[in-house]
Amino acid sequence: MNKVLKNCTVLNDDLFLEKKDIYISGDRFVDFVEGDVEDMHSALVLPGLINTHTHAAMTLFRGIAEDVELQEWLSTYIFPREAKLTEEDVYIGSLVGFMEMIKNGITTFVDMYFFQDAVAQAAKDVGMRGIVARGLADVSGHGAEKLEECENFISKHTDDPLIRGGVGPHALYTCSNAYFEKIVRLAHSTNSVLTYHLLESPSERDDYKKRTNVESTDFLDSINAFDERTIIAHGTHLNGKELNLISNRKATLSYSPISNAKLGNGIAPISEALLKGVNVTFGTDSAASNNSLNLFNEMKFGSLIQRAHEENPTLMKMEEVFKMATSNAQKPLPFDVGEIKSGMLADIIVVDTKRLSLMPEKYIKSHLIYSFDTSSIKKVMIGGKWIYDGEFTNVDSCGVMKSFEKAVISIDSRL
Amino acid sequence: MNKVLKNCTVLNDDLFLEKKDIYISGDRFVDFVEGDVEDMHSALVLPGLINTHTHAAMTLFRGIAEDVELQEWLSTYIFPREAKLTEEDVYIGSLVGFMEMIKNGITTFVDMYFFQDAVAQAAKDVGMRGIVARGLADVSGHGAEKLEECENFISKHTDDPLIRGGVGPHALYTCSNAYFEKIVRLAHSTNSVLTYHLLESPSERDDYKKRTNVESTDFLDSINAFDERTIIAHGTHLNGKELNLISNRKATLSYSPISNAKLGNGIAPISEALLKGVNVTFGTDSAASNNSLNLFNEMKFGSLIQRAHEENPTLMKMEEVFKMATSNAQKPLPFDVGEIKSGMLADIIVVDTKRLSLMPEKYIKSHLIYSFDTSSIKKVMIGGKWIYDGEFTNVDSCGVMKSFEKAVISIDSRL
Repeated sequence: MNKVLKNCTVLNDDLFLEKKDIYISGDRFVDFVEGDVEDMHSALVLPGLINTHTHAAMTLFRGIAEDVELQEWLSTYIFPREAKLTEEDVYIGSLVGFMEMIKNGITTFVDMYFFQDAVAQAAKDVGMRGIVARGLADVSGHGAEKLEECENFISKHTDDPLIRGGVGPHALYTCSNAYFEKIVRLAHSTNSVLTYHLLESPSERDDYKKRTNVESTDFLDSINAFDERTIIAHGTHLNGKELNLISNRKATLSYSPISNAKLGNGIAPISEALLKGVNVTFGTDSAASNNSLNLFNEMKFGSLIQRAHEENPTLMKMEEVFKMATSNAQKPLPFDVGEIKSGMLADIIVVDTKRLSLMPEKYIKSHLIYSFDTSSIKKVMIGGKWIYDGEFTNVDSCGVMKSFEKAVISIDSRL
Repeated sequence: MNKVLKNCTVLNDDLFLEKKDIYISGDRFVDFVEGDVEDMHSALVLPGLINTHTHAAMTLFRGIAEDVELQEWLSTYIFPREAKLTEEDVYIGSLVGFMEMIKNGITTFVDMYFFQDAVAQAAKDVGMRGIVARGLADVSGHGAEKLEECENFISKHTDDPLIRGGVGPHALYTCSNAYFEKIVRLAHSTNSVLTYHLLESPSERDDYKKRTNVESTDFLDSINAFDERTIIAHGTHLNGKELNLISNRKATLSYSPISNAKLGNGIAPISEALLKGVNVTFGTDSAASNNSLNLFNEMKFGSLIQRAHEENPTLMKMEEVFKMATSNAQKPLPFDVGEIKSGMLADIIVVDTKRLSLMPEKYIKSHLIYSFDTSSIKKVMIGGKWIYDGEFTNVDSCGVMKSFEKAVISIDSRL
């Protein structure tokens, strides 16, 4: 079905406003087509945002423990619950996560978790696009089994319109070197997105070096774990030399400033990474450590914390920050998303700009980064289909919320 | 008129949920009264938040210049426009600022600006409570005149149900020492709130010392400018000795983490201030440097940036952070606000908790700080009157927005 969206306001490359009509054929933008006409009455139409690092199912754990040390948080609160999760829990947790992302203007995700079929089903049910990376670790056994699951999931989804499989070795501290190397080979042989946590917390660098006598990043480079399909999550403690390497390898660095701050992991060297030409994007991480799934918050917080840290208000220009959440994030992905132009996938969000916090109107570009409120997002389209227009088109919010609350209570009862 | 709000959910001192009915007689909470009954259907009812540092009229300048050096921002963009402002501009800018604050759950403000009658009129027209401090500076003359205006405004508002005058010496770099001393005397003789910018940017300490051979804070203490009615704005570069002094004097420190970050001014020593017993509160500062007027954002950002900076996830406990936006902020003020209890002024916000981002329900306390979205605020009461219920009761939003956009264009045309 073809669609014509008349009288849209869009942002050009410099984030200036332009009026235009948008034409959609099937799931892509085209130069011109005849079809159902919808008058957008000058509403602002933006490309959907891309969340390059998340664990959607962990909405189940939002708020369970706050203001505690990272190790206590993991071992007392998170791990015991994860050990008890069923496939149904992961489905409902992921669904709530994806619904929240959509309401906040995110149309594409990169997820790392387990019960990957449930994650994918939740995304398809709500109509969302993304990479579902099976989380991989051999520290507590079952490494080979998980890798096989991962490979099967990838081959099952090579032609899926919304979902692709990804390869998600959890981290160097949960995967042996040999296992990590095998995983990277799978990513290369299937041309899949490879994504892993790296140097997220202050102690990881020394811990790895003590164990192996090698720098984490030297090992990773030796197995070609930095390439154009790689998304490094966090990298909070990468140094300048490593940023150069990542830039040269054209790998992507996913910046999760809110999660890094909340867990006390520090401030990632993002303004330096950008200067060195690293492809930087944003990830919300999970609702257990964020606790929102909102890239508009990530853009503002992530930009401002760099300025505060370096006492420099000229860092992190708006245009650059917006690209980090859109076109930069497309680069490692197998989806043509992140821009509204002919040939790209029709993933958009529609914003009502008649709001106090988005005034004066003439400076809307600034308000997108610095005073945006996602309740101004009125509609969301993914692959040419409206999947949200105040209500979700494909799922019953009320029923989902009830099932979710039941699942949370049930998980706690199993502890 | 008496009101009974049946079936409210409220937070007790530890931020746990309790069910109760709320009784209101005139503009205050009482233990029991008969009156108009409204069923709140278990909605969460919170005390309105208190914004201890703002310049509401500067919504007029939201987004005019971003990503530039502070001095360029002030001298090229802000000051030339402020020189052209009319009383009508300040009225409409303040009104939009107050409306945005109310939608975001703020019921009390401390404002510093000029055309103070227009600021007060805007607050009264929308039904908001606050301190209107005439901004004072003698660096460009007219110091005595401004001080007289300030004094007159204070005496005119001693019995106003919503507005009190405050005393607002802008900063040590815009007021001579002699003038600052006179100002402080006025604050003391009228028992008014005294509020000023202090050590906001990195260079202020040395600049003042070079000029006077005295430390800023030594001078201020010598003229008794730190007392229980004092609100210090920013204090980004206060040292440990100065925090001890401020704690001993029971002065209040208003923390504006977003503005401090955006302008590249740094990270205020707030976790240290709290350890030393300083009464810390939150201020949004203006929409020109924030660019929102939303204390829920300030709570999250302000808490997280401390943790990131010190790489410690146990800093800034939720209960403490919530008090910073409510009961702590009451201390320097002449209003009985910030808590829902008998005898206090009936200023509340009503939250719809049936939202994806506020799930799981049982951890709502955490969601208030870490995943709150102000579009969940459905109603706002100030002094026993509902002033917002999705629409503003006393003003026509649509008309206000039109007048505001006109004013912005008109100001630019005068440059």
